Order: sequence, then structure tokens, then C-alpha cells
Amino acid sequence: MAFLNDHYLKLKAGYLFPEIARRVRTFADEHPELAKSIIRCGIGDVTEPLPPTVIEAMHKAVDDLARRETFRGYGPEQGYEFLRHSVAENDYRKRGVDIADDEIFVSDGSKCDCGNILDILGDRNHVAIVDPVYPVYVDTNVMAGHTGSSDENGAYHGLVYLPCTRQNGFVPEIPAERVDLIYLCFPNNPTGSVATREQLGEWVGYALSSQAIILFDAAYEAYITDPEIPHSIFEIPGAKNCAIEFRSFSKNGGFTGVRCGYTVLPKSLVALTSDGEKRALHPLWHRRFTTKFNGVSYPVQRAAEAIYTPSGQEEVRSLVQHYLQNADVLAKALRSTGLEVFGGRNAPYIWVEAPSGYNSWQVFDKILKDIQVVITPGAGFGAEGARYFRVSAFNSKENAEEAARRFTRLTW
Amino acid sequence: MAFLNDHYLKLKAGYLFPEIARRVRTFADEHPELAKSIIRCGIGDVTEPLPPTVIEAMHKAVDDLARRETFRGYGPEQGYEFLRHSVAENDYRKRGVDIADDEIFVSDGSKCDCGNILDILGDRNHVAIVDPVYPVYVDTNVMAGHTGSSDENGAYHGLVYLPCTRQNGFVPEIPAERVDLIYLCFPNNPTGSVATREQLGEWVGYALSSQAIILFDAAYEAYITDPEIPHSIFEIPGAKNCAIEFRSFSKNGGFTGVRCGYTVLPKSLVALTSDGEKRALHPLWHRRFTTKFNGVSYPVQRAAEAIYTPSGQEEVRSLVQHYLQNADVLAKALRSTGLEVFGGRNAPYIWVEAPSGYNSWQVFDKILKDIQVVITPGAGFGAEGARYFRVSAFNSKENAEEAARRFTRLTW
Repeated sequence: MAFLNDHYLKLKAGYLFPEIARRVRTFADEHPELAKSIIRCGIGDVTEPLPPTVIEAMHKAVDDLARRETFRGYGPEQGYEFLRHSVAENDYRKRGVDIADDEIFVSDGSKCDCGNILDILGDRNHVAIVDPVYPVYVDTNVMAGHTGSSDENGAYHGLVYLPCTRQNGFVPEIPAERVDLIYLCFPNNPTGSVATREQLGEWVGYALSSQAIILFDAAYEAYITDPEIPHSIFEIPGAKNCAIEFRSFSKNGGFTGVRCGYTVLPKSLVALTSDGEKRALHPLWHRRFTTKFNGVSYPVQRAAEAIYTPSGQEEVRSLVQHYLQNADVLAKALRSTGLEVFGGRNAPYIWVEAPSGYNSWQVFDKILKDIQVVITPGAGFGAEGARYFRVSAFNSKENAEEAARRFTRLTW
Repeated sequence: MAFLNDHYLKLKAGYLFPEIARRVRTFADEHPELAKSIIRCGIGDVTEPLPPTVIEAMHKAVDDLARRETFRGYGPEQGYEFLRHSVAENDYRKRGVDIADDEIFVSDGSKCDCGNILDILGDRNHVAIVDPVYPVYVDTNVMAGHTGSSDENGAYHGLVYLPCTRQNGFVPEIPAERVDLIYLCFPNNPTGSVATREQLGEWVGYALSSQAIILFDAAYEAYITDPEIPHSIFEIPGAKNCAIEFRSFSKNGGFTGVRCGYTVLPKSLVALTSDGEKRALHPLWHRRFTTKFNGVSYPVQRAAEAIYTPSGQEEVRSLVQHYLQNADVLAKALRSTGLEVFGGRNAPYIWVEAPSGYNSWQVFDKILKDIQVVITPGAGFGAEGARYFRVSAFNSKENAEEAARRFTRLTW
């Protein structure tokens, strides 16, 4: 008699985006004359085409696969050396952060890495997540059996929730109770907040002193414009002994549909066996890659490599600038209506406080009805999001400017 | 204090291919004049370029990503409908097997799926694997904590090993003790054996009667030439209530470096909760895909779709024919030296009994030394392989023919 993994049954239905889709559909059915003018500022997916240098590299790599002499079959599971080297050199060593090529593990995306990393970690870690939060951190811990069931507010027993509020600038404070794994994401999804060097330094200090591990999601690193803000947790001294970093080509190169990201797992990072012995995690992660993964598609790795060429870098900068410009236009418009607006300066997301008397779903309904713009209700990201909403800058210039014009017409 | 997953520490070092590489390197260093003539018949990786129709489809898909109007970002995590439909229609419904589009889950390869499937299954299943075996089935169960440690022969406590021998035609018999999960792979890696409809029918009967689940790896399905041999476990009545099938584009379309495969998980398949309640596994697998995966690269999915076009099908047939022709040449040569040769008719692998007095590593050393051909020692696949070796037909025609000529020179 085959048994299933009961922990999956604790998961709440993936409610947020289906519910958004349902409400948009209902509105469109009831107002067919307005359906065509709906602008979506809800989703975190890029809209602009891939940079020309990336396209060229992919075509060339496809041609490599067309000829016997240049054909490549199975590659190294952890990524080709050409890409691991480009990443370590450009994203770390050139910025003064000492990361070796073989501390880079190339994957098919950050979402996968954030989930898979739990494979090599034990079952009795106390896990801290921020609130509001990217739901993948929570759900993968539920699946792995690291939580109890959820309460009426959707919070899971056994997780330590770290509130991110306007009072703390949406950067969590160190909790009183002991935690062993801490998920941090900066620039943050959904709040668009960033952490200063000092704030990250405090977390690294905590992790070192308590032998905890920080799982640092830096998927939106390319959006940092403020020169004082660290791009990597490894800019903080000591972090190589207490952190794993996740990076993605999704939001810089526009690879959401191409699929490539990477993990940085320093060889100096250790964790405890259940006997209390310290062991490096790097060989475990390496073993996971070689056993449960077979490497990223060769043309995709060549495409990612092209991002690091001079022309690739320039094209990515212009893509990022495009989305940041959208964020600026949208944030200004929202601010002009008297709303409190956060994020959007070092991030593609704007986090807006709901006007008094509204919760986030009521804001969603009103904005859809009044100006036919779709935003994301903060409640979808956790209890602390219930009085906020997220506006995504991932859009064409035209759509962002039109959405901004409509935002200025909002009255509360 | 962060804990690691202790089960990883039970894993034996990935010994086989590194040890082969070491011995080849040593031989080449000691005999530099022979190093250039070494022919590798050891690895299960394809050598021939991608079919032209696939190349064309990939180029076109890359161009789609170059223009705003045709750009695609995040796709459905379980695969685009265009590919799921092509798979279900061509690989199943046209062959009389009723599989729905949404029972197909497109992934980045069979190796990943074989490992990931354990996520949705419980911890107290009795797991049966064949011996010799594709090591991924074993290692992923070790990682998931489904085994004890290994004994001096490398066998893990807690797994049920099903010997595949020349006496049973390398098709395992149903064990006396109860098992809940059974890994079957036909055409088989490494033995090249196939299972008849009757043999698979017995396994399906056993699984249905004991509420067990068969994990059926059909990665080499394209190599079946005998019209009586089932291509899918779902050709056996009742299998939709007791089986999950894994398929790959690696060995038909040559996608080992492109990365695409799929799982078929029927909606009618149930497993037990720890309370003994029956629940469908399909929603759990769907949830795993949406939470821990973000879909296969768009150009890769278009490439896989192209395999199902008339020209794609013809090109794949000719690729498969190429490797099967190699297998035939190699098998004949080996047989001509008096060796007992199995497989190679419906599979790209030939399984050869070591001559009396030799174990598989001794055969490896002799073949390398005498004729500079690299084979795979059967011991690398399990205890039952210790007196066999595997010859892979994945090679150019020239190399296969030259290896065959050299095999005929072997004396034992």
C-alpha cells in the first residue's frame, strides 16, 4: 500500500492569482465594453523581449547542436565552467567579493533552488520567514514537513513569522526566539524594500553567533540604484560562514521564460549533523545536483553567459532602467493621490498602503472597477500585507504611463 | 544551529564514472602513443547532432523571444498546452492509450522527475529496486531517508533488491515480501532487456492487488523494434490505477544537453494518507510543479514539439536506427568472440557476461589495455552486475564499427 506525503495536504489552495483571475474575468464579463482597456500591474513577469546579444548567443548555441563537431550532450550538472566562471568573476570577484567558480551552481531558476535547498537541510531547524513573503519559502517548508497545519489567518504552526512593517522599514528585526534558517529577500518582493549594510550586518552577526543559516534571495539585485546598498549578502564580512545566496537571470536579462539562475554556496559554510558534528554543505549540494538534476539547457547557459559581455551588460542596464522608469512614473502617480508609497526605487515593485477603511481586496476591487487596473492585494503575501497592495512595474512604457494617468483619477 | 540532512551522509561516493575516468587517464599517461585511439563505449550520452526540424523550431522560438509581440515570459509550470497535447496525442492516444493532456507534466528531464517524484510520496513505503539498476533510483531514496546505511557490498538496508539475471531474462520476479513502490525500467538501462506484455501484466496485477505503485521509466521506449513489446506501462489494463511513467526526449531526439522529458501521472492514481484515506496523487504532483518548478525553457518546449511533426518523426527514426545499427554491429562482434551477449535489439545498450574467471573491472582493464575501448563495468550498477559489462551504442558509425573490429580481436 503506497503512502503519499501527508504534509502536502496541509497546503492551502494556491489562492491569490486564481482569485485575481476570477475577479478580473467576472468584471470583464459584466463590463464587456471595458474589458479591452484593462491594464495588468499585478504580475511579476517581464514584458520586454530578450536583449539582442542574448538572442544572438542562443542562436549560435542552437547551431552548435546542429553539427556533430560542436554538438554537446550531457553537460556538468552544476553548470558549464564558462558560465560559472563568468558569474563568479563578474557578479562577485569584480565587486570585491571572493567567490570561487565552483561555489556557483547553475540551475533552471531561483524558485527551484529556493525549494530544493531544503533537500540538504535537516528536519528539525526552526525556520523564520518574513511577513509579507514570497509564498514559495513557506509552501516548500510545509511540503517538507517543517510546519504544523495553518491557523484561521493562514499562518503555519512551527514557522517563526518576522513582521515587516512601515515601522521597521520592511526589514525584519531579529526575533527573541531561536531560529536556525532565515529567509531574507532584498530587494524585496513584494515590498520593494532594501536592507542597508548595517541591517544585513546585524543578521549576519546573529547567524554567526547562533550557527544559523541565512537563505538570501537576491533575485532583484539588478534593480539596486543606491550605491550604499549591498548587492550580495557576501559583501558582509562573515557571510560566507552563514549564508547561501540565490540569484536569477529572470529579472535582469528577462529570462522568466528561458529559465536560468544560480545558487552561491560557499565551501566554508557548515551545518550540524544530528550528532552535533559540523560538516560542509557544499558537497551535499553538489551531490544533490549530480543525482537529481542534469544541468541547464546548453543554449540557455550560452544565453546567460552573453549577459556578461559588454553589449549584454549595456542591454540589461537599459532593460532594468526601463522597468525602474515605469516604477517611478507609477509611484509618483499613486503618491499624488495622497497614498503612502514604498519601494520602487531599488526594486521593480511598489508597495502601497491601503487608504483608511479599505483592506487590500477592497482596494483591488475598487481599482479594477474605477480605472480598470489590476494590482496585487497584499493579503496574498501574508497577514502583514492585508492593508497594502503591490503594483508591479513590469510592463510596457505605454501601459505603465496609461496606468499612472488612471491612478491620478482615483479618489478614496 | 542549522542542521543538515544526515541521510546524505549515507551515500557512497559517486564511484563508477570517476573511477572509469581515473583508469582511462592512467592508461593514457602510461601509453601516450595509444591515448588518441581510445574509443569510448561507456557513456549513455548521444553523439549525433539534433534533427534539422528540431533546430529549425528552436531558432524560431528564440526569434519569438526577440520581439515584444511574440515574447513569452513565465509559462505554465507543467508545460505549454501545445506540448502536453502533442505528447498525449502522439505517444498515447494515437497508440490506443487513453491519456489526457493534463496528465502530462513536462519537465527538464527524466532524471529530475525520477528524483522529484519522491517528494509527493510518503516516508514509510517499502521500496523495491532492481539489481542491476540505474543508480538514481537508489540514491534519491537514500537522500529522502527511505533506507538505512549500506552494507559492505553497497546494498542499502531497507531497500528490497530484485535480482535481474540471465535466468529471469533480466526481468525481475515479484518478491515474496510486501513492497509499495517498484521501480521498473524497460527497455532497461543497463541490461538492454525488455519486458513482455505478460510480464508487465503480472506486475500491474501485483500492484493493483497490493495497492502498490509502479514507477515506470520508459526513457528508451523509442528503441523498441519488436511489435509485441509494450511501449508504455499504460498499455496494460489497470495500469492507470497503479503506475506513473517517466519519458524523455534525451535518447530519441538527442536532447541530453537540451533537457526535456515528461511524467505521465493519471488522475485515477491514488495513494494512502497516514490515516488510511485514499487520495489522488495528481493534485500533489501538480502542486509540486507550481511551487518548486517554473516550467521548461520555451525554446526547448518548441524543440520537443517539433519531434512530433512528420519530418521530426522521420528524423528521430533515423537517429534511433543509427544507434540500433551500431548496437547490432557491436553485439555481433562481441558474440563472435564467444561471449554471451544480451540486449541491443530493443535498446541502445548491450549487456555482456564476463568470461569465466573475470569480474567486470578486470574485463574493463583488459579491454582498455588490449584494444583501447572503454566499456562500463557492471559492478557499477549493483551486485548482480559484477560479472557483466555494458557496451553503449551511442557513438558515431565510424567509432562503433572500429570498436566492433577491435572486439573481434579479443581473446580471453
